[in-house]
Amino acid sequence: MEKEPRWLTAPEQAAWRPVAALLFRLPSALDAQLQRDAGISNFEYMVLSGLSEAENRTLRMSDLAAMASGSLSRLSHVVSRLEKRGWVRREPCPGDGRFVNAVLTDDGWAKVIATAPGHVEAVRRLVVDALSPQQLSALGCASGTILGAVAKE
Amino acid sequence: MEKEPRWLTAPEQAAWRPVAALLFRLPSALDAQLQRDAGISNFEYMVLSGLSEAENRTLRMSDLAAMASGSLSRLSHVVSRLEKRGWVRREPCPGDGRFVNAVLTDDGWAKVIATAPGHVEAVRRLVVDALSPQQLSALGCASGTILGAVAKE
Repeated sequence: MEKEPRWLTAPEQAAWRPVAALLFRLPSALDAQLQRDAGISNFEYMVLSGLSEAENRTLRMSDLAAMASGSLSRLSHVVSRLEKRGWVRREPCPGDGRFVNAVLTDDGWAKVIATAPGHVEAVRRLVVDALSPQQLSALGCASGTILGAVAKE
Repeated sequence: MEKEPRWLTAPEQAAWRPVAALLFRLPSALDAQLQRDAGISNFEYMVLSGLSEAENRTLRMSDLAAMASGSLSRLSHVVSRLEKRGWVRREPCPGDGRFVNAVLTDDGWAKVIATAPGHVEAVRRLVVDALSPQQLSALGCASGTILGAVAKE
């Protein structure tokens, strides 16, 4: 006999609905600013800024995929686009040729520097300045807890 | 003279980072369950379940776009796929032929009924049951506030 699904209670539903909407609308809004002002997507910006903060502006493709979203094939596709625009290059890992590194070029670094102020302004307007410090901190903690549950999948 | 960007402070950064990661990883995880168990994406499920809750299982395409993510062109593309699979049909709005309605078919309704239990189980495992009721409620409130800021863009 199949177990009856544990449907969400009314308060759970009331909390989940805006979260589900947020997962679509906040990335769309962040994307819109980046596309309009910098010609790149939110995902592309995340890859470039992730590299800009890494040692030697270099990360293994597999680590970058884990950081950015979990999908190596999606990342490969995005890095190919960034390579064509001269912002990233791929090269075999010097320590172990089985791995491929992604390296931020000088042009890529300049792109991050030029793009960061507009992006951080959008993050402030939509998230950080829209919430009280207590709300922001609670949001960060809840997000961290959910990431932990996602990592166990 | 250009204004210096208002960079995030350390606590703001500490809160924003997991939120930014969540925006990529939670949709990926929800997508993975739906693709594996039902052969549809999270976005497709959101469209189908939105229609299933609407009066007469019908929504204007423009209202459905606003509900689902804001982009009518993306929605059109997804609804075309759902139409091909026999779950949705499009028809002119009876009251005003300038508008197009999306209608959930009986097969589409059956698809929602079959898909909902697995999806709600994933939402419980990754979000609702992973958080305390207070955390979940705070997350819902913060998400609602951010949606309000996004709507003003």
